[in-house]
Amino acid sequence: MRLAQALFAPRAVALIGASGDPQKNTARPQRYLRKHGYAGRIVPINATRDEVLGERAYRRLADAPGEIDHAFIMVEDVEAALEDCARKGVAVASIYSNGFADAGAAGTARQARLLERSRELGVRLLGPNSMGVIDLPGRVALTVNAVLEADALPAGSTSLISQSGTMLGTLLSRGAARGLGYAKLVSVGNEADLGVGELVELLVADADTKVIALFLETVRDAARLALAARKAHAAAKPIVAYKLGRSTLGVELARSHTGALAGADVALDAFFRDCGIVRVDMLESLIEIAPLLAGRKPMVLSRTPKVAVVTTTGGGAAAVVDRFGLHGIELASMHDLTMAGNAQGYRATLEQLLASADCDAVLAAVGSSAQFHPEFAVEPIVTAQRTDKPLVAFLTPHAERSLALLAERGVPAFRTPEACADSLAALFAWRAPRQFGDAHLPNERTISLISQTRVPDLIRAASPNWFAVLEALGIPVAQHAIVHAPEYAHRVPYPVALKRLIAHKTEQGGVVLDIQDARALAEHAQRLGDERLLVQCMERGLAETIIGYRDDPVVGPLVLVGAGGTLAEIYEDLAVAVAPVSEAEALTMIERVKGLAMVRGYRNLPRGDIQALARAVAALSRLALIPGRPVREAEANPVIVKREGVVAVDALIALKE
Amino acid sequence: MRLAQALFAPRAVALIGASGDPQKNTARPQRYLRKHGYAGRIVPINATRDEVLGERAYRRLADAPGEIDHAFIMVEDVEAALEDCARKGVAVASIYSNGFADAGAAGTARQARLLERSRELGVRLLGPNSMGVIDLPGRVALTVNAVLEADALPAGSTSLISQSGTMLGTLLSRGAARGLGYAKLVSVGNEADLGVGELVELLVADADTKVIALFLETVRDAARLALAARKAHAAAKPIVAYKLGRSTLGVELARSHTGALAGADVALDAFFRDCGIVRVDMLESLIEIAPLLAGRKPMVLSRTPKVAVVTTTGGGAAAVVDRFGLHGIELASMHDLTMAGNAQGYRATLEQLLASADCDAVLAAVGSSAQFHPEFAVEPIVTAQRTDKPLVAFLTPHAERSLALLAERGVPAFRTPEACADSLAALFAWRAPRQFGDAHLPNERTISLISQTRVPDLIRAASPNWFAVLEALGIPVAQHAIVHAPEYAHRVPYPVALKRLIAHKTEQGGVVLDIQDARALAEHAQRLGDERLLVQCMERGLAETIIGYRDDPVVGPLVLVGAGGTLAEIYEDLAVAVAPVSEAEALTMIERVKGLAMVRGYRNLPRGDIQALARAVAALSRLALIPGRPVREAEANPVIVKREGVVAVDALIALKE
Repeated sequence: MRLAQALFAPRAVALIGASGDPQKNTARPQRYLRKHGYAGRIVPINATRDEVLGERAYRRLADAPGEIDHAFIMVEDVEAALEDCARKGVAVASIYSNGFADAGAAGTARQARLLERSRELGVRLLGPNSMGVIDLPGRVALTVNAVLEADALPAGSTSLISQSGTMLGTLLSRGAARGLGYAKLVSVGNEADLGVGELVELLVADADTKVIALFLETVRDAARLALAARKAHAAAKPIVAYKLGRSTLGVELARSHTGALAGADVALDAFFRDCGIVRVDMLESLIEIAPLLAGRKPMVLSRTPKVAVVTTTGGGAAAVVDRFGLHGIELASMHDLTMAGNAQGYRATLEQLLASADCDAVLAAVGSSAQFHPEFAVEPIVTAQRTDKPLVAFLTPHAERSLALLAERGVPAFRTPEACADSLAALFAWRAPRQFGDAHLPNERTISLISQTRVPDLIRAASPNWFAVLEALGIPVAQHAIVHAPEYAHRVPYPVALKRLIAHKTEQGGVVLDIQDARALAEHAQRLGDERLLVQCMERGLAETIIGYRDDPVVGPLVLVGAGGTLAEIYEDLAVAVAPVSEAEALTMIERVKGLAMVRGYRNLPRGDIQALARAVAALSRLALIPGRPVREAEANPVIVKREGVVAVDALIALKE
Repeated sequence: MRLAQALFAPRAVALIGASGDPQKNTARPQRYLRKHGYAGRIVPINATRDEVLGERAYRRLADAPGEIDHAFIMVEDVEAALEDCARKGVAVASIYSNGFADAGAAGTARQARLLERSRELGVRLLGPNSMGVIDLPGRVALTVNAVLEADALPAGSTSLISQSGTMLGTLLSRGAARGLGYAKLVSVGNEADLGVGELVELLVADADTKVIALFLETVRDAARLALAARKAHAAAKPIVAYKLGRSTLGVELARSHTGALAGADVALDAFFRDCGIVRVDMLESLIEIAPLLAGRKPMVLSRTPKVAVVTTTGGGAAAVVDRFGLHGIELASMHDLTMAGNAQGYRATLEQLLASADCDAVLAAVGSSAQFHPEFAVEPIVTAQRTDKPLVAFLTPHAERSLALLAERGVPAFRTPEACADSLAALFAWRAPRQFGDAHLPNERTISLISQTRVPDLIRAASPNWFAVLEALGIPVAQHAIVHAPEYAHRVPYPVALKRLIAHKTEQGGVVLDIQDARALAEHAQRLGDERLLVQCMERGLAETIIGYRDDPVVGPLVLVGAGGTLAEIYEDLAVAVAPVSEAEALTMIERVKGLAMVRGYRNLPRGDIQALARAVAALSRLALIPGRPVREAEANPVIVKREGVVAVDALIALKE
């Protein structure tokens, strides 16, 4: 594959803007390539010097001899450098220079022009604003990241794609300190051309890579990444992501409509789950989880996950088990053993648990011996007969040598109770990617309606009736009628609700509930004063819920279900999934909403018709199937859950501009 | 102080059961005392040898010459050793041996006898099941903890009291790896005699100790610890606790009554807050927070805490800031600087922020330079002109030398974004201990009623009326009457609710709501069939809440307020405090209940009478003031919050046996 070779294993690299001052960042790629034993040709390009750091340099790329696979651009005039690259037949240009999408609207426009030109020229771009590429097994250190000052960095089978250049150094240095190495590391910068999704595809095809780690600030190419994730799954290469921007959720939730509810982090969370991407919460989990994922497929547990613990230290094990509890992981059994003179017994206990049906993972907790007698401390752990069941270690003291010995033998080991619990929780929550088309749609009639005429027609009507759209999708709505002054005649049975036909009607006093007869209705209607009003049958049930749909600008169509009233907002109590979903998938979403416990058979409270709610969620999610996806947002709120059936009491649909 | 000297700085120690086999745990104290330069006399006692590890040993303690301050008992016959200690005039015996409260009912009885005897004999006990005592500045390593195999451990000004012996090694080794030292460390074991509270008092008086760290599994002496915490505060020595058992909350919450709601971890959380004890969530925070607390008093912020960030690495700073958001900490400002050649500018920015009113703490995030140029990287941070405002550092790479340099200069530095955010959140949440008697009780009449006759009399009545108790406390209750068959006469205005006078009446179908007239009442009453029934005015309001009181067996009287219905349970949405509380304190509790946002002025929803709710919470909390504290649990549930006033609709009080 020409791209992969040029990017990761170039036979010759040009360093455009290579500095002769070893203190400068722009001198680093040359120093690092040499220091770490790059076997190809290095071609420094410097506008004013014929020699850089003791090597022959060229004023212009055109002057350099031979073919160049990969250029690292570190000059301000990126555009001119790109033209030079094209003329020289360079396949990939990594751009360290910034001043593009990282620099406001003008920079964004400059980046768009650069991308367009690169496509015309047939040169692929990494960056701009990229710290470069590292391939440790291949000894390619084409980067400005100072972590390469280290004399040696361990090679491993995890590869990293990072939207933060700094994180290459963070993961490499922290990993190296405890024996966890890397294969390839890529700083993607602004992702003008090569994005996370395409890079994942390259790593799926990379023989050195077993686990793909992502450090993300956002997702810029969801569709490509979604596809790449399926390829990774097929190739049995787990992807794990650490993503910033979790805490914006609170801010987003301060707004009221579905769009905000499904926005930001929860949208990406749903997207990762849909793609089978493992998501970790803590930064060091991104490093430490790799050996746990390597060669593993998602586990399918039919119960609350249980971990058995073998320990030589009560306090240390308790710290992890306590943390497990916070993640909903149960303790299967606790075995407090003495290691001294009992390595056989310790290993036998591990092996027995690894073979047992009573637990889903085994944790070996080790105390002081891990610090002073590493070989002795980890011996029974690394020599235990492994099964498919995860075996992980937690060491209570500062014990880097023991961590490294465990890493060498592929035993996942954790520095902190928190990262240990985070990683196991992420493993247990991991599911295979949903294959496109997985959302089996039982109601064929509904599908054909959507893909043919009725729903699209209803949506595009001059004055659309959102209730009619819900009904056409297959969602029951409260019996209703539009009434007109001065008679306000209708056939809806009393008691009824009376509503103004405006947005935010509740806040504006435009809703009257529980009207018992026609006389009262007329009084209220006259007071409200509108010519047209909505009369609706009063509906009572066991619980209120909210169902929503949003075509998210980042990850595409989403569906959500949440606790009703203001609960979804106040408690952030909602479940989001990539749309469309099947009824079965909707049921698992409903299971994740705490507030719906009340209708799932909580205590002695009556059960609500969860199946009907799932049908409604699946039905709304099929808005994603309308050709052209005209709907931006839709919300049925509240949807009342009854003992039998559900009914939508209010609805709102917003179309794309 | 004789006890402190004998415990931490004995002039002579006897090692009862000292082994001559250096591989054995019981040989460790002698080895460690020598290795770490203990200056006093070491007296090994061994029943069969006259020499142990090259030193003169004695068969019996009585044979040993001179005075002995402290004995470390490592033999099975602890009782005989205790008698020997008493005869020899030993002041403190630390007991490594187990088989006491750690070993079932028989062991617990054995421990009680041992304690009784030790009091008769005038020997203070540490343990049993204690790993001993370490005083690093004093070079006393009287312990079996293997961390003392280390050649040198840095002395510092943090002292640790731990209910897990292992954790002495965990904190010492992890601290040492990054330059954070300790003063004294105590493994308290079963706390038969010397408990956490008394040890805190000793550390308050200890000149080497500036910060007191607690590793807790439970609290065994809450009253003593509460007192000690006030003394620590008065002496400006912050206490920080990491406590296991957080995740039992979920289990406890599965039960329905107040007792469970206030049980377990939330009770201890309320207790720590009341005592002014800082609580951290993550294990390494217990190590890393110490320099942040040293010499500091609780901050009193009148706004959401804001942190300004100065960074040389966007990605690293973003990881911390993201985590801040999860803790409700805001970003005041972000300053992305280059350190190279700009140390002056970096320091100037730090100093400007430290002096600014726009932030409450300053974070310096440092990238790769922290790994390869430690002095250079931390120089502007450690030389910045400090103010009272916290200055903390986060280093993105593995950079132990930089961490140690920061530690040397007293700058709190964090290895992970998570511990950094956890520690700052704990700092911002820290409050001075509530001084006993702080709960100003505005209603003098209520106090006098409680302390004199009426409430106690009502509670102790033959068939107590819990509504009457609430009313006497000053909590409004729904208008009600007891009705009798066959007339069911009453003067409560319709609509009314009818209730059977039994527990769990809702689950048993013993409640009928919204009865409109006497005829309907009689019909329902006849159907229920009881001779006596309760008729209650139907109350409607803006929200339901639960108010509870519990005399917790561990920490004493507590009061709670939570979201009503099942929300308190489903979302664990409640606030707990040590009782009694003042109205002002009750208001801050209400502020912590998310579900009550709806009546605090959420969106355009009408506001409820929060002040009246606070009065009710404070009133119920005064059950703690009744002499003899006869009430075990009390609950008013639901308490309906109206636009004006609150009203309790149901109540339950359980007395102690």
